This record gives sequence, C-alpha cells and structure tokens, in this order.
Amino acid sequence: MSLTPLVQSFIERCMVAVGTQPHHAHSLAEVLVEGDHRGHYSHGLNRMDMYVKDVQTGICAKDGEPVVEKDSPATALVDGKNLLGPVVGNFCMNLAIKKAKEVGVGWVVAHGSNHYGIAGYYAMQALKENMIGMSFTNTSPLVVPTRGKECTLGTNPLSVAAPANNGDSFILDMATSAVALGKVELHERRGDSIPEGWGSDAQGKMATDPKRVLSGGGLVPIGGSEATGGYKGYGLGMMVEMFCGILAGAQYSKYIRTWKVTDKVANLGQCFVAINPENFAPGFNDRMSDLLSVHRGMEPADPDAPVLAAGDPERMHMKKCEELGGISYHLNVVNYMFCVIYQWALCTAPLLPEL
Amino acid sequence: MSLTPLVQSFIERCMVAVGTQPHHAHSLAEVLVEGDHRGHYSHGLNRMDMYVKDVQTGICAKDGEPVVEKDSPATALVDGKNLLGPVVGNFCMNLAIKKAKEVGVGWVVAHGSNHYGIAGYYAMQALKENMIGMSFTNTSPLVVPTRGKECTLGTNPLSVAAPANNGDSFILDMATSAVALGKVELHERRGDSIPEGWGSDAQGKMATDPKRVLSGGGLVPIGGSEATGGYKGYGLGMMVEMFCGILAGAQYSKYIRTWKVTDKVANLGQCFVAINPENFAPGFNDRMSDLLSVHRGMEPADPDAPVLAAGDPERMHMKKCEELGGISYHLNVVNYMFCVIYQWALCTAPLLPEL
Repeated sequence: MSLTPLVQSFIERCMVAVGTQPHHAHSLAEVLVEGDHRGHYSHGLNRMDMYVKDVQTGICAKDGEPVVEKDSPATALVDGKNLLGPVVGNFCMNLAIKKAKEVGVGWVVAHGSNHYGIAGYYAMQALKENMIGMSFTNTSPLVVPTRGKECTLGTNPLSVAAPANNGDSFILDMATSAVALGKVELHERRGDSIPEGWGSDAQGKMATDPKRVLSGGGLVPIGGSEATGGYKGYGLGMMVEMFCGILAGAQYSKYIRTWKVTDKVANLGQCFVAINPENFAPGFNDRMSDLLSVHRGMEPADPDAPVLAAGDPERMHMKKCEELGGISYHLNVVNYMFCVIYQWALCTAPLLPEL
Repeated sequence: MSLTPLVQSFIERCMVAVGTQPHHAHSLAEVLVEGDHRGHYSHGLNRMDMYVKDVQTGICAKDGEPVVEKDSPATALVDGKNLLGPVVGNFCMNLAIKKAKEVGVGWVVAHGSNHYGIAGYYAMQALKENMIGMSFTNTSPLVVPTRGKECTLGTNPLSVAAPANNGDSFILDMATSAVALGKVELHERRGDSIPEGWGSDAQGKMATDPKRVLSGGGLVPIGGSEATGGYKGYGLGMMVEMFCGILAGAQYSKYIRTWKVTDKVANLGQCFVAINPENFAPGFNDRMSDLLSVHRGMEPADPDAPVLAAGDPERMHMKKCEELGGISYHLNVVNYMFCVIYQWALCTAPLLPEL
C-alpha cells in the first residue's frame, strides 16, 4: 500500500479545514510530500503544523493569488500576497519558464512569500521543459557570519537543476550553512558531539558541543572556520539574500522573523530562474549526461562509498520508497501529525473530513 | 611613484612583442593589474609568462574578434575564437549588460576561450551600470570530488557583484575549492602543514602534508570532507562546469588540459550574466547598503578581526596600494618578470621596446 496519496490528502484536508483554498492546499501538499519522498524529512509532513498554524492564526493568507507588479521580457517582480510559499513559488517558476521559452531566460523574484518547502522542487519544474532551473529563498536568521557572533543570515538555500538524457539530471539543492539546524538538534538529543565546522557558540567560537550551538550560538556557513574557507559560504549566503530579500524588496537578514516564532508576517523574498539550453550550444543533454557519468563512474576512495552526483542521494531514497511501496515515516512524526494535529485541527474545524 | 602604469605598459609591450594585437594586450594587462591591485597576486603579473607563451607558441590566437554564434533577446552563445580570455570576457560581459538594459537580464556563454584572470573583473563591469554582474569559468582539473581520488573539476570560480550606494558594493569572487593551489604550494615551500579540509592525497584521504596533496592528490571542494559538507562545494563546482563547459559546448571536466601544460588549445567555457535591479523592487542600492552595514557593524568575536563583507579584503588591499603610491610586488616576481621574461621575449621579439 502506498502511503503517499494518504499523506497528500491528509495535508490537503488539514489545510482546507483551517480555511486554505483547496488548490493552494494541493500545491503545499505536493511540495511537502516531494520533500519526504526525496528524503528531506525536515521539509515535509514534519513541518505541516507550522503551515496549519500560520493559516489558522491569519499570519499567512488563506485566499487570493500572487500578482505581477513589474514585468519585462526576461523578468518579473511578483507580490506573493502573503500566500503559502508553494503557491507563490509555482506561480513564479511557471512565469520564469514561460519567459525562458520566449527570450531564453526568465528571472522572477517575489516578496510577500512564506516558507516554500524544498528549494529543489521549483528548480526541478524546469526539467520538465528540458530547461535549467534555479531557486533561492531567504529564511529566518540561524547562521553566524564569519568572524561574527550573531545570526544575521538564514540557511539561505539555493537549488540548481539541469537536464541530462533519458530523464537523468543534476539537482543541487543545498543550504548555504554547513549543515541544517535539524542535524545539530539530532546530535544534541542523542548526546553526541558535532564535528568542528557545523556551528559556533554565543562567543562566535567553533563548538563541538551541540548545546552550545543551540543556546545563543548558531550554524556556520559552508566551509566552517575562516581558515577552512567559511567566508566563502558566508558570501554565498549573502548572495542568496541579495537575490531574494534585496532584489525583491522583501524582509531580509536579521529583520526576518525568528525561526519558529510565527506572530509576525514572514514576508520572505524568493528568486526563480529558468534558462533554455536551446539558446546555447547544441548537445547540452549529451554533455550533461557525460559529466554525470565521469563522476559516477570514478573509482571511489572507499569501495563501499561510490562517488555520487548532486541529486543521487535523493534518487536512492526515492528508489527505496518504491521498493517499500511508499514513503516510510518515523512513528513519532506519524503520531504527532495524525493524532495531535488532527485532533487540534478538529477542535477548530469540525468539518475536517475523516481519514 | 605609482607602479601601476609601468606594469600595465610592461605587460602590454611583452604581449605585443609576441604578436598580440595592441588592444587585446591592453585588455589582458588591465585584468592582470586589477588582479594584483585587488591582492589576488596569483592572477596578476605573476601569470604573465603563461599568456606570453600561449601566444608565442600559437596555442592561443593572436588576432581576430569573438563571434556571436546564436542570439536571442536575453541570451547569446559566443565563439571566443581561441583569443585571450580577457578579450572574450569583455566582449561577452558587454553583450550581457546590453541585453540586461533591454530585457532585464543578459546571459552570455562562450566556448573557445582561455584563462581570463580574476572572475570578479567581469562581474564588476556590471557595477558601472548599477547592475548585478556574474561570471563563471571552468579551469584545468585540480579538484577531487567528494568520495573520489582523481581530479575531475577545476577550481571553477564564481563571481557575483551587486551595487550599493555611493560606489559601495558586494563583490564575491571565489574558487569553489576550499583554497587555491597556490596556498598549498606556499605551505609546502615553507615546510608548514596545511589545515584539514584543504586537500586530499592520491588515495582520496584528507591530507595535512602539502606534499601529499601536490603529488597525485588534489584540492578538495569548499566544505572539506563529506562530514563537514564538502559535497556542497563539489556540487557548486559542478554547477559552474554546467554553466561553462556544458552550456557553451566547450571543453569540460577531466578533458580540459592539465594545469600548466600548454601544448593543447584550452577551449575553456565561460559564463557572463548581467541583471538589472531596475526591473525589480525600487530601492535595491539602499537595501544592499543596509545589508552590508548590518554585517560590517556587527560586534566581532575577536575585537581585532572585524566582520567583513565580500569584497572588503580587496578594498583594504587597494587602500594599502593607494597609501604606498602603487602596487607592491614581491621581489621574486619582479625579478622573474622584468629580467627573465623580458630577456626571453627579447630573444624572440627584438622589437620589444625598452622599459
């Protein structure tokens, strides 16, 4: 039995129960299920309660559609109207793809958006049209810049997807922090130390005790300390902020609401790009496939750990889901979502349909 | 006395002496001097001998102009005609800026190019028009992908420049390897060990002995080992390759000629992008200035090491040059260039003018 349609429908019905438009709820459910399917459980069902609460409290808009505020052949500025992130993201990415078909590139940015799930979801939409896709979002401050001791940047993810032959592709989907906050939390819960280069303490010193990172410290940018090139990751995080909050005129940097504090409209900035390889040298997919083969076919340092290309870990997870006949969830997530949230939604929305 | 005009003119005359068109020699000299001026000595005068040799041996073209092979409102594919990298780079970046003025974005890629100096030089051209600029290039294989033990990617730099108020700007100009090869070489020469996370040995294991990195090993991507997020840097290196060799139909990955082996045409791929902030939310420069101020104004972890923004180390170097009345070069570089190379060029080009 496949769990996927059940989860998709569960998320949709929870969101509709608190007043979300059914097609908006559908968009959100698709992105969250895709997150779980690709193994990014931190960006899937696990986060549904945040979206439910945001709509229920009125912090995120229930209804309406994004609006194009400014338009040119290759660009658009979109007001996300404080709608769910995936509603804004789909609107912008479709527009970017349309522009790329017409003039080769589409570059669309949105303000007034909310958390949009995995960045890769939007970049991957371009693959369906055999195009290169990119997506960026700013997020609540969790990252301490090199030499600093205060969180002024989010994990600011970027995603780039490029098509190869026979449905194969390169899919980079990464935060510009060394690791996600969830990884540090997991180590703390287990009582494990973390490797040097994941986070720093409240004094801005690299920490190996996850508790010190979680109490007044923060994540560090990719590259870790200054000596190992952390300033590059810091620069990449700033680049994402520039394409999102700064270019779109949204909230940015330390002004974005604190992570998990949802008493304030998020007004996130997001950026969506489509590039049509047909406008460049013929044979893009062939070369892309060869580039992937060069890497996957390399002799690995450890025979048990093959060299992968970006997107391969997710592919392996999806294959596992197929073999299992569905996405496997940790019992705690299922319990929490299917019992606590369901009950909670039920109180405020007696029309919530039965599972 | 300012050394800059002297060095600029010296480079130009050396290049012209081996047959380069004067305006091409001028373009190269400008990029190399700018590299030195910004403190990136590895990409300045220090590399002139490579360009002189490439032209003298006929591996790089002396004459001609880049040609637009394919054109659309927002894009162009350029054949660099095997000309000097800066000649191709200036041509493409100017075209990208022109397109961004017309349709909001210009995305131009070139095949048939050569080493183009610092990537930031091209991205920064966009600042003159108050635009965002980007530049990417592939390079000879020096980087070992995560889990691998063979170099299949170059240091594949990326640069992103964005304007702020009063001539201030954000200028990210970074290799996607943790560090440049030159840094490892420098430590080896001094007999120092290198930090974990800079390079790996011939078996793909992280090495702290620079000799092991330089003899059959390679640089590692930003992020270092797999545990500290090196796969993200590896993904970024692949992204740069995708925008360069793959999109432009140039040489790519392990097929690019070995570093410092110049018996084969380079056929590098490069990518140049301009984005016009006027097509997006009003007030871009104000927000950009504020984002820079938020970071520069932060209380640093160490009072003696202020928090910087991308481009600030270069700004500090340029200020030092101003105070000194010119760019300071290491005596060895001056000796090598002004004596050995000059003499060597003289043998084959008796018309080389006196200094």
